[in-house]
Amino acid sequence: MIATIVGTGLIGGSLAITLKEKGVANWIIGVDQSEANLVKAQELKIIDEGASLKDAMLRSKLIILAIPVDALLQILPTVMDHAGPEHVIMDVGSTKEKILQLVAGHPNRGRFVAAHPMAGTEYSGPEAAIKNLFTQKTMVLCDVKNSDEDALEVVENLVEKLQMRLVYMNGVEHDLHTAYVSHISHITSFALALTVLEKEKEQGRIFELASGGFESTVRLAKSSPDMWVPIFKHNRNNVLDVLDEHINQLQQMKQLLESEDYETFYKLIQKSNKIRKILK
Amino acid sequence: MIATIVGTGLIGGSLAITLKEKGVANWIIGVDQSEANLVKAQELKIIDEGASLKDAMLRSKLIILAIPVDALLQILPTVMDHAGPEHVIMDVGSTKEKILQLVAGHPNRGRFVAAHPMAGTEYSGPEAAIKNLFTQKTMVLCDVKNSDEDALEVVENLVEKLQMRLVYMNGVEHDLHTAYVSHISHITSFALALTVLEKEKEQGRIFELASGGFESTVRLAKSSPDMWVPIFKHNRNNVLDVLDEHINQLQQMKQLLESEDYETFYKLIQKSNKIRKILK
Repeated sequence: MIATIVGTGLIGGSLAITLKEKGVANWIIGVDQSEANLVKAQELKIIDEGASLKDAMLRSKLIILAIPVDALLQILPTVMDHAGPEHVIMDVGSTKEKILQLVAGHPNRGRFVAAHPMAGTEYSGPEAAIKNLFTQKTMVLCDVKNSDEDALEVVENLVEKLQMRLVYMNGVEHDLHTAYVSHISHITSFALALTVLEKEKEQGRIFELASGGFESTVRLAKSSPDMWVPIFKHNRNNVLDVLDEHINQLQQMKQLLESEDYETFYKLIQKSNKIRKILK
Repeated sequence: MIATIVGTGLIGGSLAITLKEKGVANWIIGVDQSEANLVKAQELKIIDEGASLKDAMLRSKLIILAIPVDALLQILPTVMDHAGPEHVIMDVGSTKEKILQLVAGHPNRGRFVAAHPMAGTEYSGPEAAIKNLFTQKTMVLCDVKNSDEDALEVVENLVEKLQMRLVYMNGVEHDLHTAYVSHISHITSFALALTVLEKEKEQGRIFELASGGFESTVRLAKSSPDMWVPIFKHNRNNVLDVLDEHINQLQQMKQLLESEDYETFYKLIQKSNKIRKILK
């Protein structure tokens, strides 16, 4: 099968590598608005060739859209308009509701499968692409009842070959859940980095003491604004809800410290320890 | 050398293992108010024997206090009163100002070296003790001018054998810096866990989507309240300062989302990306 990857960055590039390795595709065409990325991706042997979207669609069965969600919303109508029964269009965007609204009722809607691999790193670009990024991670497929059976089958087969766990939900659920287990983590990391960088201006030696715990909570702050601003924009209501709740929790802790109510603080930490049952 | 470790948990236990392995001590006496921990530590061959503090001090040259900072403040006067010129007393507490105030002017002050290894995990107890916890990590020694030269030499030799980087500061600096690069990370992790656990009650499927980014920012929420409440208590002013600043940053992000000022939000994330220069 010939597959086209639109967006040859961290996710698209890692998919390209893995699809070839697992035998899902034997030829990968890369499409990228950045010529530099395309050249880089070919140098790194992530893709076999670069092409325009139009040319690539003429020759590919599977088209994977792996670009930031705002760019995705812009390009998707064109891709859908040119989709034929021979095509399977799959996106891997981090928010789903707006994308699903956009394709709803399109005559070629059945050829589209909305997917989100819950995997990534804080790096971006073709150089960040790695093997095994997806192994044992979760792939969410959204609103699959609106996809044609044969298109869904192609994607489900891909998920299996990638050794991913499969979860089905609707777009509304997806966007709510990712706000809680992904988007807020990035917000807190960005904010924490800003807090500490601000302080460093006065206190140059702060980072001498940084250790694993700090790195763990702040590493997501290396993530690209090109990817994350569109996510926050498209999932604004959910992100605002969870951010509100998070600020409330922090304010409660602040008040307990101010009033020196360490007993209640102790109980709060005990309660938060229940996260152990979730994390391995 | 015979060494006594008071508190045979994660830090004390890991120290015990490493001191033996690196030949700093050839016999380790464990002291712990929990009989169960002592038995466990001996079973795991972390310590060679358990003893009372008094007996242990009679036979040891090096006494390492590896207990939560509130318990440390309680036990330290007794240890200092019984210290002789043959002893080196070293603590590994996570806050330093109050401890240094407590020993200031004590007739045996010179025998005491205030230390803080910037290493740990989110686990606790003797079972959590591991080899190589300290390798390539930073050891902070505080106010060393008030320690006797020979006592300091014993600790500096230990730091070298543990293959740790050595940093000197005063207690005030230490407590300020750790508030920024350690204590606030724990607060945000606890608060994030509470935020998400709260939501899970309504939305059971949330954790199906949790991936590496979430785990990274929340893993510190597994940390023990026995260790952390005393830290927040003793470093209350610094922690409140940084918590205030962190809440401000989050509120700023919230306002930008509310007003849909994505341009400024983009710039903020770019600014926070500068944390790259700190983290590897």
